[in-house]
Amino acid sequence: MSEQTKFVLTEKDLPEKWYNINPDMPVNPAETAWNAVLHPVTKQPVTPEFLTALFPARFVGEAVSMDRWIEIPEEVREIYKLWRPTPLLRARRLEKMLDTPAHIYYKYEGVSPVGSHKPNTAVAQAFYAKEEGTLGFTTETGAGQWGSALSMAANFFGLECHVYMVKVSYGLKPYRRIIMENYGATVTASPSMNTEFGRKLLAEDPDNPGSLGIAISEAVEAAVSSNGKYKYSLGSVLGPVLTHQSVIGQEALKQMEMAGEYPDVVIGCVGGGSNFAGIAFPFLHLNFTEGKKTRIMAVEPTACPTLTKGQYTFDYGDTAGMAPIVKMHTLGHTFMPPDIHAGGLRYHGMAPHICSLYDNGDIEAVALDQLDTFEGALQFMKAEGILPAPESSHAVRAAINEALQAKEEGREKVILFNLSGHGLFDLASYAAYNQGGLRRYRYPDDKIAEAMQHLPQVNL
Amino acid sequence: MSEQTKFVLTEKDLPEKWYNINPDMPVNPAETAWNAVLHPVTKQPVTPEFLTALFPARFVGEAVSMDRWIEIPEEVREIYKLWRPTPLLRARRLEKMLDTPAHIYYKYEGVSPVGSHKPNTAVAQAFYAKEEGTLGFTTETGAGQWGSALSMAANFFGLECHVYMVKVSYGLKPYRRIIMENYGATVTASPSMNTEFGRKLLAEDPDNPGSLGIAISEAVEAAVSSNGKYKYSLGSVLGPVLTHQSVIGQEALKQMEMAGEYPDVVIGCVGGGSNFAGIAFPFLHLNFTEGKKTRIMAVEPTACPTLTKGQYTFDYGDTAGMAPIVKMHTLGHTFMPPDIHAGGLRYHGMAPHICSLYDNGDIEAVALDQLDTFEGALQFMKAEGILPAPESSHAVRAAINEALQAKEEGREKVILFNLSGHGLFDLASYAAYNQGGLRRYRYPDDKIAEAMQHLPQVNL
Repeated sequence: MSEQTKFVLTEKDLPEKWYNINPDMPVNPAETAWNAVLHPVTKQPVTPEFLTALFPARFVGEAVSMDRWIEIPEEVREIYKLWRPTPLLRARRLEKMLDTPAHIYYKYEGVSPVGSHKPNTAVAQAFYAKEEGTLGFTTETGAGQWGSALSMAANFFGLECHVYMVKVSYGLKPYRRIIMENYGATVTASPSMNTEFGRKLLAEDPDNPGSLGIAISEAVEAAVSSNGKYKYSLGSVLGPVLTHQSVIGQEALKQMEMAGEYPDVVIGCVGGGSNFAGIAFPFLHLNFTEGKKTRIMAVEPTACPTLTKGQYTFDYGDTAGMAPIVKMHTLGHTFMPPDIHAGGLRYHGMAPHICSLYDNGDIEAVALDQLDTFEGALQFMKAEGILPAPESSHAVRAAINEALQAKEEGREKVILFNLSGHGLFDLASYAAYNQGGLRRYRYPDDKIAEAMQHLPQVNL
Repeated sequence: MSEQTKFVLTEKDLPEKWYNINPDMPVNPAETAWNAVLHPVTKQPVTPEFLTALFPARFVGEAVSMDRWIEIPEEVREIYKLWRPTPLLRARRLEKMLDTPAHIYYKYEGVSPVGSHKPNTAVAQAFYAKEEGTLGFTTETGAGQWGSALSMAANFFGLECHVYMVKVSYGLKPYRRIIMENYGATVTASPSMNTEFGRKLLAEDPDNPGSLGIAISEAVEAAVSSNGKYKYSLGSVLGPVLTHQSVIGQEALKQMEMAGEYPDVVIGCVGGGSNFAGIAFPFLHLNFTEGKKTRIMAVEPTACPTLTKGQYTFDYGDTAGMAPIVKMHTLGHTFMPPDIHAGGLRYHGMAPHICSLYDNGDIEAVALDQLDTFEGALQFMKAEGILPAPESSHAVRAAINEALQAKEEGREKVILFNLSGHGLFDLASYAAYNQGGLRRYRYPDDKIAEAMQHLPQVNL
């Protein structure tokens, strides 16, 4: 009974550097670095001027950096310390419930003040923006987790924060808006009348439910048209974001060492890819450099199966075609995913690094239906107490499936997954699930095929 | 910049014993132990049979125990480990914001899966009920924090949980209900048609908003009329509950030692008194036994000022007069507090131990208005990131007031307060505050005076 359950680190164990995967990418870095990023109009490689108009210069610099380790500024670490290092737990009660020989570990990022991993990059980006004299940020948010994180981070550095929130989430998750406003942010339902693109969409369809892609377009437009007063901030997809999230996996490495085990499989859910990269890349690093053979598994919704059903090609990062074009797995930038409850996973594309690694066979991907992920989440909650966010529930269910497979095969297996956030903002979604109001979504083949007609024409 | 902010303990530091204040009470223990508890009808000291019909026998035994240290069962510690020990932080950013020479520390209980300190006793009570073969619990909940905690704990031990939720909170906090239901509990708005008392109240006034006192009456009636199938569970007020919460203060003692400081003042909000006792009693113990002179401060709402305006006398624990009569500070069991947003502090009485200590001058009490506590909570959130529960915000504001006083007096002061829960379930309340929809509540003198007419007549 007195076996160790929780593995905690102190402030002193907080990583001093982020892990940047660029130099370890097994493919031509040109496929994932900025020089493979194309201007949405000219379709030629973007200029540094274009990028620094959008993002803080230090952030742009990190994207092209070939330094494996990037020092975490002391100002950022001081804020990380409010909730980091986060705990890693062995899910002993879940193991018993499943009657599995597998050992299941989870890294819990829900202890941050906003309940998810998102502040890991928000704080860094806010520090850079402050350092460079910017007034504040424009950004988008799906489920609200990113918007809350950036609102908090902007507040810490005295910056403004203007959030475009996907309309369907704005309606489903009114409380997320209040928390952003409490940090001093302004929150607008997207599509909105604030931007040219939003006005165009609303003229076509006043009931447009919005999507991450649309909200990105609006936030980008608002930043670009601000004459440099505001920078745009993205909470996923981009290389520096994945780099900032590496604190998760670095801590988990230390904690697994405390547990005296090493994972056979590392699992994270993927929308844009940031929490997945955060836990996975430090383990992938050891696959590359120390010959470890850990399976690295990305879990996405069947309703938005970017890796498992998308095409690996060049596409716009947003819906409007205003954001840069990158090479990634995509369902087509005009693809509109059904409004599943894991709002943070409704993105037509995916972090280029992750796509490249998937294409190269370094990582696996699996798609799960939301009904199965809610079921897994409630099973986890009954065993371990914590209610997972619908996004994180994809990782939970995949871990349960791996554990059940281990039972079937009668072998021990060490499973580590990232519980990227809690579901306390998602209780309306759980209510809908409990009342039988959710349905299964297969990937809509015909809609994806239709969206594929609208890929940008790129000649490189 | 690299000064320590967060003080973390490992599983090994989890207390092995609870601290029971009974042997250290500076007054006749008869005033607080069960032999000062009177039967609501006979008004004579209650029998062990009466109490064990309501509560698990081991729980009743703890109430009369004169053992200073009570071993925490291994089954309870195993579950504590899912989130305990909880962190203690120095609020360096808040100190800077207030420009105070005071050092402000907070113990953060919001990291539990249900976001408050309540599971500390819920898990113990559920283990006792399971051990004694009970089917499950009936209980009441105000803000929903206690109901969530007991639902989780009951689920861990395979017990049923039937929660009577104060109707005004049931309406304001629908999401709390969903989380209880997700753990497998049934939740009923109180007053309800399930009980005789509920039916009586609804016949008199179908719009009765409910109160903790009414909900207690219903839960007690449901347990008593179950012929022993269900036990009643109370999340505050009773001695064993205060004892179970002592893990908070014991951990905080170790963590303050890590910080190299000792608090001049320890602060907690009080409704029934459990989180306050949890952080305060272990420090009070050292006031009693080691000559420490730490000020111990209980903070209550001006709308329900039990300690500061109540009478120290015998009164029913519930509104209906079905629960035992105890000696405590009371506003009268028929007193109906206004429906302030700190639902967990709307109780006419107070833990007898706390009343006795207050009456004896061992602790202080102060009443704060909810407008001031919301203001303090948002200030704290902007500095430290975490949004406090409206209940906990009373402690936050009192700590801020103490820090500002230290600034005025130009002296260092070490302040420790209990941040008993986060406010992520209370965003509707924050929305109401932000929109200017909350008003000041002074204690309603005339209503208290009226309620005082209905105290039970006791001859001892």
